[in-house]
Amino acid sequence: MVHFTAVDVIRAKRDGGALTDAQIDWVVDAYTRGEVAEEQMASLAMAILLRGMTREEITRWTAAMIASGDRMDLSAIPRPTVDKHSTGGVGDKITLPLAPLVAACGAAVPQLSGRGLGHTGGTLDKLESIPGWRARLTTEEYLAQLREVGAVVCAANDTLAPADRKLYALRDVTGTVESIPLIASSIMSKKLAEGSSALVLDVKVGSGAFMKTEADARELAETMVAIGTASGVRTVALLTAMSTPLGYAIGNAVEVEESVEVLAGGGPADVVELTVALAREMVAAAGIDADPAEVLASGKAMDSWRAMISAQGGDPSAPLPTAPVTEVVRAEQDGYLTLDAYAVGVAAWRLGAGRARKEDAVSASAGIRLHKREGDAVRAGDPILELRTEDAERIPSALDALSAGVSVGTAPADASPLVLGRIGG
Amino acid sequence: MVHFTAVDVIRAKRDGGALTDAQIDWVVDAYTRGEVAEEQMASLAMAILLRGMTREEITRWTAAMIASGDRMDLSAIPRPTVDKHSTGGVGDKITLPLAPLVAACGAAVPQLSGRGLGHTGGTLDKLESIPGWRARLTTEEYLAQLREVGAVVCAANDTLAPADRKLYALRDVTGTVESIPLIASSIMSKKLAEGSSALVLDVKVGSGAFMKTEADARELAETMVAIGTASGVRTVALLTAMSTPLGYAIGNAVEVEESVEVLAGGGPADVVELTVALAREMVAAAGIDADPAEVLASGKAMDSWRAMISAQGGDPSAPLPTAPVTEVVRAEQDGYLTLDAYAVGVAAWRLGAGRARKEDAVSASAGIRLHKREGDAVRAGDPILELRTEDAERIPSALDALSAGVSVGTAPADASPLVLGRIGG
Repeated sequence: MVHFTAVDVIRAKRDGGALTDAQIDWVVDAYTRGEVAEEQMASLAMAILLRGMTREEITRWTAAMIASGDRMDLSAIPRPTVDKHSTGGVGDKITLPLAPLVAACGAAVPQLSGRGLGHTGGTLDKLESIPGWRARLTTEEYLAQLREVGAVVCAANDTLAPADRKLYALRDVTGTVESIPLIASSIMSKKLAEGSSALVLDVKVGSGAFMKTEADARELAETMVAIGTASGVRTVALLTAMSTPLGYAIGNAVEVEESVEVLAGGGPADVVELTVALAREMVAAAGIDADPAEVLASGKAMDSWRAMISAQGGDPSAPLPTAPVTEVVRAEQDGYLTLDAYAVGVAAWRLGAGRARKEDAVSASAGIRLHKREGDAVRAGDPILELRTEDAERIPSALDALSAGVSVGTAPADASPLVLGRIGG
Repeated sequence: MVHFTAVDVIRAKRDGGALTDAQIDWVVDAYTRGEVAEEQMASLAMAILLRGMTREEITRWTAAMIASGDRMDLSAIPRPTVDKHSTGGVGDKITLPLAPLVAACGAAVPQLSGRGLGHTGGTLDKLESIPGWRARLTTEEYLAQLREVGAVVCAANDTLAPADRKLYALRDVTGTVESIPLIASSIMSKKLAEGSSALVLDVKVGSGAFMKTEADARELAETMVAIGTASGVRTVALLTAMSTPLGYAIGNAVEVEESVEVLAGGGPADVVELTVALAREMVAAAGIDADPAEVLASGKAMDSWRAMISAQGGDPSAPLPTAPVTEVVRAEQDGYLTLDAYAVGVAAWRLGAGRARKEDAVSASAGIRLHKREGDAVRAGDPILELRTEDAERIPSALDALSAGVSVGTAPADASPLVLGRIGG
């Protein structure tokens, strides 16, 4: 491998140039080994954030981060493999019904997932509210479950994309998170290292999402689809709305509960719609001829769910934890409800459902249960939502977070479609 | 003091905003104390480099770096105090005749100086070629010499602007050196911490200088004059040419020798011209009515030089070290000589006169002695310059550095004035 100095690479990007393949390979590898220091990578990350990267640079950067660790080998799995990634939203429990549904359609869903940070929840945190369920599997357990059940959602192994893990932690403390090249390469390095043959991305747009505008979300989606495609993985992205929460449940146990309703054939219309829309993309990407709506109605997805939870030590029939403290928020006047995703997400976080730092614990039972949703007509005194927490002292700050995000106006907010666009395929 | 987070401050600059006084005070102090980590300051430095800072921000940043340490108190010195700073060039020995000349005019010159790095030499390295001379003084010795001799050139104490020392080392390894706000605040924090009442800046322009264009040099000069003036210090800057070396001597002992020639009433015309021009600015800024050209001719500047060297343990009459290895470079054809400052600077550095890392030692006797200067007519076979070194193995790489910078053409290069402009006052 050609040798560079960190300062040369930093200067090239700082001065607006594109990094060469050899520079990218060297700097990512040298950073992983500790030869490029944290302060040097921080300076480079800021230069990348402010100067940008070409698609070719981003694809190479992603490949270099994958090459920093192991890539899972799923060639022994007898079904087509397909995964889904969401950029994160409020009430986004879609993975929970989706993974077993797609497995029931005949694909294998190998999902290495993460924990929540800030106002968005994490899939592993949600599943951990199920008594007995464990997020950590050995590689052997993981592959066996994928073969036998067809769906596995568990914690990523430390050997996948270690460069990304190191860089992600650095970006968090150096103000270099909000860079589309760095976000796209971070997500895609983890997802491609999973070894799945196809990938469907749910890129969320709106107040409760990381991308606040459709233009930014589209750029991120296009960038990720380009990286996936260049890496030989069939990749499709949906742009979906995240200006108000998905479904009626925001938290951990409450979202598991709502997911089980969907698997049982009920559940909120938007959660069902998005689950089926993403499942259709996943089965198509996997080359399987199946109708997810029919499979959902048949009850087979629920069977897959129970198998998936049991395989990881969870009891799918056990009652979920409930919160000792509840507080109902009521409408102060007649009118139509507006409910901001970010405000609700922050309120749920403050109630204990989320964490501020990655070493914090989360509460399984804390969260919010909506009684009304955005666009619903309400009368003064009607219950709008219920706060749930283990600690009554958390209620005031949660109410404070909600205050700017819950309002009752004279006309309903414009109803926007849930799926805003589709990229790739 | 108000408390911020490093990420908030980084984001504010990253997104193109101006930092508030409180943010600047906090981040510089917190960085000095280690609360803001190196990687956070690296990210902020890159954001400053790419986004810039207003004059107000730069002035406050400088003040915060001064406040990170001690500021010298020169109020007990019975003469007006005035210092000079050069941004560095090749053959730039001007401090050596200038400090005693200005002292002989009646001012006190308190110069805390640095060592050379890369292709430009350092004043302390030059003076250390004088047998017995020492760069380190206690504060008491420093003040006593300033009172009694009127001129002192010594190493800066570690308690002056420690934030700058830390940041300077960080910028060196993170590709964040080339930022006018950071360069200006670094220089001015050190110079203002010296406590002098007036300051004259020699901002060099050209291949051998840090600023390659007159526009950049002017911006740096205007920024530094604005910082000094806002801090209550009378500050003037001269823009001076640095496309070919100053004088005939480049190195350590050779430059001391040439400086003594100037003090004795001889020496190269350009060195005399720049010494007198800067001395005029310094005595004017100090409010003293004296003509430096007359004082130089009177021999009083030489008396001050001898007193200044003796006060720091040096023997002004001792022979200077000479190099065992010499190599003469001759003209290959008839014509007019062009001599590039950067090429000559790098050659002298490779001969041992300079250092690549701050912990390296330098050779007192290594360097270059010119026989001809840019614009001179030469005949094939005429000696152009002489290389001097302690180590014959260094000759080939020095010749290599010179190859692109020494040429004989059919017409003389355009002679440009030495002083290109003046700012402030």
